[in-house]
Amino acid sequence: MGAFMSRNTSYWIWYPGDFELYHAMRQNFSRVERGYGWPAFWKSEGFRNRVAFRREYELTEETSFYVYSAAVGHVLVEDRKYPFGRSILCGPGKVRVSVHAGCIETFPSIYVEGDVIYSNHTWMAEDYTNPPIMAGFNERYTEKSQNPSVWEYKEEIYLPVSAEACADGVLFGFETELTAVLEIHDSREDRQLRVYCGESREEALDRAHCYYSWTPDARTGRCQRCAVRYAFVAEEDQAYSDISPCLHGDFGTNVPGKRKSVLPEEIEVKAIHQYTDIPVRAQFTSSDGLINRIWSVAEHTFRLCSGIFFIDGIKRDKWIWGGDAYQSLFVNQYLMADADINRRTLLALRGNDPMTTHINTILDYSLYWILSIKAHYEAYGDLDFVEQVYPKMVTLMDFCEEQLEEHGFITGRAGDWVFIDWADLDKEGALCAEQMLFAECYRTMTLLGGRLGKDAFLCGSYRQKYEALKKNINAFYWNAGRGAYIDSFVSGREHVTRHANIFAILFDIADERQKVQIVQNVLHNEEIPQITTPYFKFYEMDALCKMGYLEEVLERIREYWGGMLARGAVTFWEEYDPSVQQEEQYDMYGDKFGKSLCHAWSASPIYLLARYFVGLKITDPVSGNYELCPHLEYFDSLECVLPAGDKQIWVSWDGKELKFGEKQ
Amino acid sequence: MGAFMSRNTSYWIWYPGDFELYHAMRQNFSRVERGYGWPAFWKSEGFRNRVAFRREYELTEETSFYVYSAAVGHVLVEDRKYPFGRSILCGPGKVRVSVHAGCIETFPSIYVEGDVIYSNHTWMAEDYTNPPIMAGFNERYTEKSQNPSVWEYKEEIYLPVSAEACADGVLFGFETELTAVLEIHDSREDRQLRVYCGESREEALDRAHCYYSWTPDARTGRCQRCAVRYAFVAEEDQAYSDISPCLHGDFGTNVPGKRKSVLPEEIEVKAIHQYTDIPVRAQFTSSDGLINRIWSVAEHTFRLCSGIFFIDGIKRDKWIWGGDAYQSLFVNQYLMADADINRRTLLALRGNDPMTTHINTILDYSLYWILSIKAHYEAYGDLDFVEQVYPKMVTLMDFCEEQLEEHGFITGRAGDWVFIDWADLDKEGALCAEQMLFAECYRTMTLLGGRLGKDAFLCGSYRQKYEALKKNINAFYWNAGRGAYIDSFVSGREHVTRHANIFAILFDIADERQKVQIVQNVLHNEEIPQITTPYFKFYEMDALCKMGYLEEVLERIREYWGGMLARGAVTFWEEYDPSVQQEEQYDMYGDKFGKSLCHAWSASPIYLLARYFVGLKITDPVSGNYELCPHLEYFDSLECVLPAGDKQIWVSWDGKELKFGEKQ
Repeated sequence: MGAFMSRNTSYWIWYPGDFELYHAMRQNFSRVERGYGWPAFWKSEGFRNRVAFRREYELTEETSFYVYSAAVGHVLVEDRKYPFGRSILCGPGKVRVSVHAGCIETFPSIYVEGDVIYSNHTWMAEDYTNPPIMAGFNERYTEKSQNPSVWEYKEEIYLPVSAEACADGVLFGFETELTAVLEIHDSREDRQLRVYCGESREEALDRAHCYYSWTPDARTGRCQRCAVRYAFVAEEDQAYSDISPCLHGDFGTNVPGKRKSVLPEEIEVKAIHQYTDIPVRAQFTSSDGLINRIWSVAEHTFRLCSGIFFIDGIKRDKWIWGGDAYQSLFVNQYLMADADINRRTLLALRGNDPMTTHINTILDYSLYWILSIKAHYEAYGDLDFVEQVYPKMVTLMDFCEEQLEEHGFITGRAGDWVFIDWADLDKEGALCAEQMLFAECYRTMTLLGGRLGKDAFLCGSYRQKYEALKKNINAFYWNAGRGAYIDSFVSGREHVTRHANIFAILFDIADERQKVQIVQNVLHNEEIPQITTPYFKFYEMDALCKMGYLEEVLERIREYWGGMLARGAVTFWEEYDPSVQQEEQYDMYGDKFGKSLCHAWSASPIYLLARYFVGLKITDPVSGNYELCPHLEYFDSLECVLPAGDKQIWVSWDGKELKFGEKQ
Repeated sequence: MGAFMSRNTSYWIWYPGDFELYHAMRQNFSRVERGYGWPAFWKSEGFRNRVAFRREYELTEETSFYVYSAAVGHVLVEDRKYPFGRSILCGPGKVRVSVHAGCIETFPSIYVEGDVIYSNHTWMAEDYTNPPIMAGFNERYTEKSQNPSVWEYKEEIYLPVSAEACADGVLFGFETELTAVLEIHDSREDRQLRVYCGESREEALDRAHCYYSWTPDARTGRCQRCAVRYAFVAEEDQAYSDISPCLHGDFGTNVPGKRKSVLPEEIEVKAIHQYTDIPVRAQFTSSDGLINRIWSVAEHTFRLCSGIFFIDGIKRDKWIWGGDAYQSLFVNQYLMADADINRRTLLALRGNDPMTTHINTILDYSLYWILSIKAHYEAYGDLDFVEQVYPKMVTLMDFCEEQLEEHGFITGRAGDWVFIDWADLDKEGALCAEQMLFAECYRTMTLLGGRLGKDAFLCGSYRQKYEALKKNINAFYWNAGRGAYIDSFVSGREHVTRHANIFAILFDIADERQKVQIVQNVLHNEEIPQITTPYFKFYEMDALCKMGYLEEVLERIREYWGGMLARGAVTFWEEYDPSVQQEEQYDMYGDKFGKSLCHAWSASPIYLLARYFVGLKITDPVSGNYELCPHLEYFDSLECVLPAGDKQIWVSWDGKELKFGEKQ
């Protein structure tokens, strides 16, 4: 947290976590579908409303300072109160400064400006419940004129690359998918326009089923920010702009001729793309054009889904999901290596203590949160952050331990969602894959507790639990006959799926002999149902890479991600099934355009290519030491730059010779 | 809660408690002192941001309904989603309706309108953490056009009754103290006015030390709502309108002649008094003019302090305090008999579980909250409310039981404020008065648990704890030599104050023999320091009445409250010491105008007169049965009407004959 803190810079400060919880709530309440809102269906955690900030100074001479805040409150210097926004003179000598702030609509934050007295992480924050704690801050908020409740997007203007008269309107196309505010100007003033947005051409042209449609603001011509690749502009029609979901399906086609057509030359459209500026630090160019395109589209997909937080998709859900975010950490590490979006996302996900429900209501997503802290640490060596959240790791583990059955296996309670994947898992009794995640959590607690120098008793206890759980998993779930782990030992069905077996490889639950059996009996066994989501495909590819099947993985990347490109994808999709007809390819969840066409979890080729083919691995996150084990034999040539902590590693392969080094 | 619910009326509904917590935060953040805000210095509890409301219907025929909400969300009917504000058609048959709502700035609330499907307490609310619970509502919010985040005040216009040129401005006086928006119109347009408000003439004329001063809005001439009896209007002067507290005391006098004077004939002033309309149901007229005036001023004081909640005072603190509110319950019972302000106040005070700090940070104020539920029940028989809050009573008691010392006595933890009164108590170790409150809490838990039919084990356990604690109090704190209870048995100082001894009478910790000793050795012993606050004087008078010293109490009321009237009070003060010089009479907390001149806890004569002199006591709150034991021998004549639940009791005494009865 404090690592990048500049000296003598004033920061906006708040109670730690409040910034993330507030913006997460805004993010999770931003989903819209055909005119109605869909706030995320889990516990939405509150920021604090009443906070005190304190700092003591030993002043050698008189000094003055200002405190700014949009909250209700005052500054207390010793026992004298001052309003915000006025010069305050104090010193010399010992001076206790406290700032009292209350705010209902958003979290209280303050900005203290002065030569000697100014706000940064050396201030303590109090919430009238817990012991004082280091104030929260963010590198992006260092100017008095800023408002930490407003996230500052960068903007870039995109003009349409196509304009086509379709039925009674005009279909505008952009070069790629954007998260944009559309601005529409009509040369005629005698009509009201409506804009229908789509991630696909088909969606934009389907007035009834497209997710987002807007009436441009009368004064500015602007629409609400949303995901858009195509925009269909037509005259407003009450039947479509005021769609009653009861009528779903009745208005699927356009009805040309009934209204006056809107013509391309009458309309000016621009898209103001709004994004969070996180620089990409990787470059990848190989002799394989398809792989290059996959990298590039994955990069665009991932950047769109990396805003204030890692979100799942930019059209839908726009929510922060713990499992999705965990995968994003791995792509981030090799693409942007931005530690702050990790921190923001992880603070947002975890919420406040006491923990009362699982993250996103999903048991496994709570467990991924623990693993995320490890992934974050291993990428950036950010021990300050681990220190900050370790107490919440412990209380999360405590919460999980309230739901163990007789063998110490974790089970879902009423209301818990035991997810793992959209797949036919045998979920009777304790589910094997959950145990493997849980075991990895115990291992993480031991590892990170040790790094923090936590007391040996606590770490020892986690280590013992890890060993016991791992042993029990092998005793109850390993089926020697099948040479694989089964989903459930309770049901008696001995159902084998890929999921637990993949985790057994990734988390070292299986020994080397078992791993070989798993590859043969499960991963290379066509009778075991295939993984259908790019989400779990990430883990499968990771496991196959770990087991050395790089050529196979490269082929699958070319097939699966290349398949989406062949269908015209400019961003990677939430799901892709090559066997589905083109007309139905955007259908999901029983919704014609339900599928998200820009989904973070589909960006995993970046991680796979960087981690296993370029072969870069950080070995010591604190010192930034790394090892490079390239497997570039599948490429005729390759030029690549990857981040490793603060360093930039370049690798150059011409088919014969490999060169590499560090850039500044 | 449901008792007054009308049939077929739509109510705004929300998660129970959210309405109170939101408005309480607004109330507790509304304190202003000389230009800076002072949000209450305790844990300010959040309302929920994400709520679902659910209801199932068995519809005999098709029906339609609308859902309205300012939140983000949608309506789910079976598995179909609808936006807010549109007609929804459903049925016949079984129909599950749920409404999903998210809001950051305020609590989510919804309004469902339809012939068959409409919102009221039959809907359940969920917060994604706790089991479903009956939705919250308020009788005041039954119209679609309302916004439950906005409290609707009634307004009454007051014109000044005096206008007096003072120095360079005009001092306007109102007939009494108000909570008002001032509206100022200046016939000249070449200057900027500033208004300085005061509860006293002296405060309004003291530009530097008055609490509230405003620059009227340029367009409307209006100022912010505040406590005001006098308003001094002068030309704006940077030195005063922008007072730096560093300069306190340097600007205490007006400097006439330096600026152009504002003249009375140039200015129009009106006060828009804003109040919560709670009808007064009592009338009191006796042969004793002073007592009549005391009743009348107490009534005005109490009504001003009874807004959305019972607050302590209207200028300062404007906060909701548990101890103050407890006393207000008793006055309310005999003056307005409004159960809803009790409920609002008690829900606001208690906040959410888990409890992490004491109410208002004060140990005794947590305990009064338990006693308040009993007082509320005994006044209104409101078992629905008791049922609603009993779980929070149990968790509050659990929280208290975490801080018992070896004898089972309750002690303060670090950060707890052990208050009892502004008095010189011996607070070493466990304080006697706190134990007596705590014992009364155990008795309350037993009583109310029994009324609710809670399991015998729980109630039995509270009863045992009550008996044990009462026995221990008498063993450790009763000092047979002094014939009184001592503050502390740890210090060895055997310090006797009135406080614990008063509680011993009120809560029956003392037996009849001990009570008589207490009156003699403490209450009638001039060597024991007098109570200095009207707050604790309430308990002292109550105890004296209980012991039959009515004549003495009447005399003290005439002296103490009559003393304030003699000093010009139009509302009763936070504190009054007859020995203080007139020039210093508004001074408190080291602040020249720090004393609140309109303070709820000073309205207790209403309770004392009604309860002991008219002698009305509700004996069965559920049936509304009461007993009347009048002691009107101190009056030549008296006409009085008092509420008793839904009934109105009238009493008429002409010095010879007493008549009484019920009115409708």
